Amino acid sequence: MNVEPGLAVAKGHGTENDFVLLPDPEGRLGLDKALVAALCDRRAGLGGDGVLRLVRCSAEPEAAPMAADAEWFMDYRNADGSAAQLCGNGLRVFVAYLERRGWADLSGGRELAVATRAGVKRVRRDGGLIAADLGPWFIPAGAEGAAAGEDALVGVRGEPVPLPGLSVDVGNPHVVVALRDVEQLVAADLTRAPLVDPEPVQGINVELVVPGPVGPDGAHLAMRVHERGVGETRSCGTGAVAAALAARVWAGADPPSTWWIGVPGGRLRVRVPDGLVLAGSRVELAGPAVIVAEGRLAPEWLALL
Amino acid sequence: MNVEPGLAVAKGHGTENDFVLLPDPEGRLGLDKALVAALCDRRAGLGGDGVLRLVRCSAEPEAAPMAADAEWFMDYRNADGSAAQLCGNGLRVFVAYLERRGWADLSGGRELAVATRAGVKRVRRDGGLIAADLGPWFIPAGAEGAAAGEDALVGVRGEPVPLPGLSVDVGNPHVVVALRDVEQLVAADLTRAPLVDPEPVQGINVELVVPGPVGPDGAHLAMRVHERGVGETRSCGTGAVAAALAARVWAGADPPSTWWIGVPGGRLRVRVPDGLVLAGSRVELAGPAVIVAEGRLAPEWLALL
Repeated sequence: MNVEPGLAVAKGHGTENDFVLLPDPEGRLGLDKALVAALCDRRAGLGGDGVLRLVRCSAEPEAAPMAADAEWFMDYRNADGSAAQLCGNGLRVFVAYLERRGWADLSGGRELAVATRAGVKRVRRDGGLIAADLGPWFIPAGAEGAAAGEDALVGVRGEPVPLPGLSVDVGNPHVVVALRDVEQLVAADLTRAPLVDPEPVQGINVELVVPGPVGPDGAHLAMRVHERGVGETRSCGTGAVAAALAARVWAGADPPSTWWIGVPGGRLRVRVPDGLVLAGSRVELAGPAVIVAEGRLAPEWLALL
Repeated sequence: MNVEPGLAVAKGHGTENDFVLLPDPEGRLGLDKALVAALCDRRAGLGGDGVLRLVRCSAEPEAAPMAADAEWFMDYRNADGSAAQLCGNGLRVFVAYLERRGWADLSGGRELAVATRAGVKRVRRDGGLIAADLGPWFIPAGAEGAAAGEDALVGVRGEPVPLPGLSVDVGNPHVVVALRDVEQLVAADLTRAPLVDPEPVQGINVELVVPGPVGPDGAHLAMRVHERGVGETRSCGTGAVAAALAARVWAGADPPSTWWIGVPGGRLRVRVPDGLVLAGSRVELAGPAVIVAEGRLAPEWLALL
């Protein structure tokens, strides 16, 4: 192909959380807000929920303290260009791309340590899925609130009264609301943010869930999510983790440790070590991670920025 | 780059009408509906309003009758996979890509003939713009209707009464409605299709326009568009042409021949030969056409289809 030189780029998604990937192993790329926003623009750019820059820890001052534990740093940016702590589905797509380029070897069950702004995370391949440990986590309500199964009231548009919710912290804040059936889940209006009482200081992600059957492969949940500052999305990795953790509280004694979370964009698996209900250092998010295409940005497009 | 073999692909846009480009000069690609829809999916694919396959007329049976007049055939598909006659902005992006690959030479004002399902169209570069002749066109109302400046009533949501509109045929059907000011244009609710009376048999594209000042560079118009079967879009090339043609009728004797159409996705220029008001064989649409990136589809993504 007669491809002129340009910035290397790829696109990928995990359960339709989609990302623009920028391989930048030597840390040569100045990633400013305008470039991130232009890349994520769904019509004038490539389109994505965010940008994943792949840079070696040794080449990125921000990640240097983690260089002894991880080769690669995930520089994640929201679509508006702001830097974010972590993105569960993004981490899985990040590793799928490293593997595709031959920059990581996940064969034979090998784990890969990845540096993120939320610390070093461990990722492995499990058959067709990519699984990432997103711990630590905790249920802020504590033992008493967990016994009640709720610590907040959530006003969802379309519902006549506020519904009880349980807060879960997975590095970012979530509140999970159990609905009675799939009809109620489908009818919920998430075009505006649900109102949460007590009001969170910096916003909160809201998961609406409907528990499904417990099968031999684990327990099942259907979920819709409203992400703070974004709106309803097709999937949210940390939201799926929060949903499973809340559902384990509600399940009572001896809760299932494997959960399958159906979201509009696909299906995610969450695994929690047995016995832990209120807090833990590990929780694994697994699901598909797909690279769609890779190539180079056109220099004339870059020149427009 | 360690890029595995895969299907060549690019993305481009013209005033934010965006397209997935598939270079297929030898006609080897079986382009089915499922592949088109998957490519245009904005989260699980590359995302676009449609697909532009670039194939030589000599290699494409459908285009063989035009092979004497044009080297290339624009195989345009809507995002749902259906084949479409023509897309004005798509044609301009198509030619920008041919030029980028060195498959067309537009230097020195050279015109390029491109085969489309609506016949052979002529395209040229005009400074930073790419200009395409989208004629023939006509005003179905004829001289009498044109004298009245209307031949239809258009019910726009948010407006208390139906508004008069003028039909324009640019290969596809349009009805253009003049609003009194930009406030009315901004307030119009295009989340649902306007109701047109008489009711069009196969749907119709509706343009809402507000005439602006006439400057030394031509006349100005602001426009929003509702495309049949799609909804409101950021831009519509044939819609901009229809808007300019209707505005020329309304402008009375000796109307301007150059029009600048401001749409949500940018600005387009329409030029009509002097003197023609009810029908003509030529009308030129010009505007920016930008290639964003090019590369290859990941084989593992193709394998998922």
